[in-house]
Amino acid sequence: MSFHDAVVPAYLQILNSLTGLLTKAEAHCEAKKIQPEVLLGARLYPDMLPLTKQVQLVCDHAARGCARLTHSDVPSTPDTEKSFAELKQRLAKTIDYVKSFKPEQFDGADAKDVTFPVGPERTMTLKGQQFLSAFSFPNFYFHAVTAHGILRHNGVEIGKRDFLGVS
Amino acid sequence: MSFHDAVVPAYLQILNSLTGLLTKAEAHCEAKKIQPEVLLGARLYPDMLPLTKQVQLVCDHAARGCARLTHSDVPSTPDTEKSFAELKQRLAKTIDYVKSFKPEQFDGADAKDVTFPVGPERTMTLKGQQFLSAFSFPNFYFHAVTAHGILRHNGVEIGKRDFLGVS
Repeated sequence: MSFHDAVVPAYLQILNSLTGLLTKAEAHCEAKKIQPEVLLGARLYPDMLPLTKQVQLVCDHAARGCARLTHSDVPSTPDTEKSFAELKQRLAKTIDYVKSFKPEQFDGADAKDVTFPVGPERTMTLKGQQFLSAFSFPNFYFHAVTAHGILRHNGVEIGKRDFLGVS
Repeated sequence: MSFHDAVVPAYLQILNSLTGLLTKAEAHCEAKKIQPEVLLGARLYPDMLPLTKQVQLVCDHAARGCARLTHSDVPSTPDTEKSFAELKQRLAKTIDYVKSFKPEQFDGADAKDVTFPVGPERTMTLKGQQFLSAFSFPNFYFHAVTAHGILRHNGVEIGKRDFLGVS
């Protein structure tokens, strides 16, 4: 198995399943006469980030993870989404971007240095595998599962199988 | 980098950080005169699993992930924990178990078949890397982040840095 296989399918699985979660959330809003912006702005606690930002961060961690591991230009996307349709479009663009990487771009990347920001003025350098295991995946899943938790907490009928993308 | 490095440090980081989250949750209960069993039984929605079960499942996915990837006997632990202290003990035992694996036990495991249950009467077979990326990690992080979400939603003063184990 290549290092590509440790990275790209993992991101794609959750980016796809999150698209499905948002489709169910949108249908839930329609069925229950909930204004979409209310659910898009929902948080698990007042000082946590809202659903929209959680989804944007999932996209960022997947895209930037691929870019940093392959020493490509790191993409920056403005956070302008204001609807379920726009968030799904961002997920779709992120999926296309992640799919655009060729397996050989990841060859040897597990052992190469990756330098990345961990604050406004601080960077950290880790080997690719460590960057993936200790930083990219925990952040990526953190925001994806928190998005799932916000939707569940607000009554959207989804479960872990939806999160895993197997239902 | 070895396949061991793709598996064991990732589990350990979150098992350790979850121990820290529970320590803060316990202190929060004491400071706010909250009965610990109320927080241990908290859920994000009535048909979701409570905090205690989320932590137990994090332990199971880490321990069973290591066992399945190394073709070792798969441990089974009864879910008897009823306090923060007992849950932290279970996390500590799981950490010891995960640490007990030697790097060479994972050699070549990414390309070997892993057969695992996906329901009461169904199994699935995937290559080790796919089992890790598509099943073990998403489940492991799902329950860990949900535990974090339950605590945050209930006012425990923790953040993503606590989840990542960097604070």
